[in-house]
Amino acid sequence: MNLNELTQKLIDIESVTGDEQELIDFIESFLLDSGYKGNIFKDEGGLIVNTPDSNPKIALVGHLDTVPIHESQKNYSDEENIYGRGAVDMKAGVAVMIQTILDERDNVVGVFYTGEEGTPEQNGLNNLMSKLKEDFSIELAIVMEPSSLECQLGCNGTLNATLVIPGVSSHSARPWMGENPFFKLKELSEFLLKNEIKDYEIDGLIYKQVITVTRINGGVANNVTPPDITLNVNFRFVPSFSAEDAEKYITDELQRFGDVNVGDISVGALPNKNLDIITDFINSTGLEVTPKQGWTDVARFTNHGIPALNFGPGDPLLAHTSDEFVIKNEILESYEILSKFLESAT
Amino acid sequence: MNLNELTQKLIDIESVTGDEQELIDFIESFLLDSGYKGNIFKDEGGLIVNTPDSNPKIALVGHLDTVPIHESQKNYSDEENIYGRGAVDMKAGVAVMIQTILDERDNVVGVFYTGEEGTPEQNGLNNLMSKLKEDFSIELAIVMEPSSLECQLGCNGTLNATLVIPGVSSHSARPWMGENPFFKLKELSEFLLKNEIKDYEIDGLIYKQVITVTRINGGVANNVTPPDITLNVNFRFVPSFSAEDAEKYITDELQRFGDVNVGDISVGALPNKNLDIITDFINSTGLEVTPKQGWTDVARFTNHGIPALNFGPGDPLLAHTSDEFVIKNEILESYEILSKFLESAT
Repeated sequence: MNLNELTQKLIDIESVTGDEQELIDFIESFLLDSGYKGNIFKDEGGLIVNTPDSNPKIALVGHLDTVPIHESQKNYSDEENIYGRGAVDMKAGVAVMIQTILDERDNVVGVFYTGEEGTPEQNGLNNLMSKLKEDFSIELAIVMEPSSLECQLGCNGTLNATLVIPGVSSHSARPWMGENPFFKLKELSEFLLKNEIKDYEIDGLIYKQVITVTRINGGVANNVTPPDITLNVNFRFVPSFSAEDAEKYITDELQRFGDVNVGDISVGALPNKNLDIITDFINSTGLEVTPKQGWTDVARFTNHGIPALNFGPGDPLLAHTSDEFVIKNEILESYEILSKFLESAT
Repeated sequence: MNLNELTQKLIDIESVTGDEQELIDFIESFLLDSGYKGNIFKDEGGLIVNTPDSNPKIALVGHLDTVPIHESQKNYSDEENIYGRGAVDMKAGVAVMIQTILDERDNVVGVFYTGEEGTPEQNGLNNLMSKLKEDFSIELAIVMEPSSLECQLGCNGTLNATLVIPGVSSHSARPWMGENPFFKLKELSEFLLKNEIKDYEIDGLIYKQVITVTRINGGVANNVTPPDITLNVNFRFVPSFSAEDAEKYITDELQRFGDVNVGDISVGALPNKNLDIITDFINSTGLEVTPKQGWTDVARFTNHGIPALNFGPGDPLLAHTSDEFVIKNEILESYEILSKFLESAT
């Protein structure tokens, strides 16, 4: 099975968050059937795989789950591309990881995990991280999220806040008796038009800070003006912000519109461009260095004191879209770039 | 039992739309226990009551249901007022009707009906109207909705439309890949700020045409921008508009913002100020003549060719509010005004 066939096979085994067991079992069997003689640790968080008696310093990390499969999702391949849910996010990367594991390099440990697309609590790395830190001395985590074959450093943090815009309900025939919170959306919209996207430079990389309304809900009956309107505001914050910074920033900005309640927060990761191990990767591969726009588990590794970067086949802008696809050449190329780096890092 | 006690008793028998049976039964028993000897017709739509062998020309009309009872609803009385769900809308009016029925006037038929606060299909007059038209030659329907002791003529029409503002969904970390329909709310808000309330003069009365957003809903996940946003727009249209006029107007105005789907429409009623029977009522009572802002069943009677007006105790602005109350003096006064008119109309 070549890399393209393996990617297609991984896509065909559907693995929406919470339903990854078949894919975990497939990877285990595939390794064994391919003659792999290494250690395979398996629990509900996923798989940790390394050659026996090795002391690997580099972790290859990939999540097995995908976002839900929309009915309009294409699933086929042509001469150049493979289409399907997970094509870029991130079954092509997982295929490259499997192929690399089969090369049985002493300096590599493979980490295949579940639940990355779910809530922070669902993430399988919560289970695997303590074993990883106990059994290994990892110096670099290569998270194989799609990066268009760039070396994507760091990542934004993410925060969800509930904003409740208060009003005074009235009969819809006599709106002057109340105060319709709908009209306050004008001001919020104007604020967001100005502040939706802001660029911040860190280590020479430009991260986009983004504030987005993702949900809106209000109203109790067709003939009554809404007592209030509730919005979910998603905030992708600059990697240099702590959780406290992010919470303060979004609260300060939004509280003029209503009551702000901050929910889940996952902090981002600084690019750490000047760490030796990251400089080595950049110099050895010669890849273009760009910022990661979005949150990935490089943040979790970084926060555990393990330098991490994003590198994998596929265009990240295609992640979660219904015409998600990966270029076949990129899969092979990323495998070759990775192999060359691992060779030099031995 | 005086009018105040009767009003309080009617309030104490809760009768939220769909749950009016106990109140129907109470009114029937109360009339019989008070020695009433007239006809009582009863079906699921409510009660029709008149003295035997009479040929009444004036219908007194009142709905028995209320909107739901909020937990903060007050329910008590003091020296001046009676507080409670239905106090003004419209149990005080129903008490006045009961007292007037007990006077056994030959020119009056009482119509107590269910479901006015529900959907047009729930309205008990759908059941009662054919019997009313078959058995009686009604020349004037006095709908005893609260009118602050004014003679409130006509009523607005009401229409509900669904407006779907389309967008292009994207990952919330990369909103520039899509188009967030949230931003189109700014334009809609600006349109409504200009067009929410417009005055129209008919027969010297000023009706307010009102466009109100009453529900808003959009979004699929906290980290995805909404594919679209759906709103309910409630349109209280000028009495001179037909259903087709209203549908065309709201569609023409809203379609620039998205897809418009018109749902239920109830047309309004012209004031018909110059009809003899209405002029008689105005001249006889000397009441101030004002427009009815909102929809009432005067529209149903008018559309069935029966002249109708609104007259009853209580401030209509208090209808559906949680501190709904009626002034005791107004209950007695409306009974006296009505009695005097019925006397003169004999």
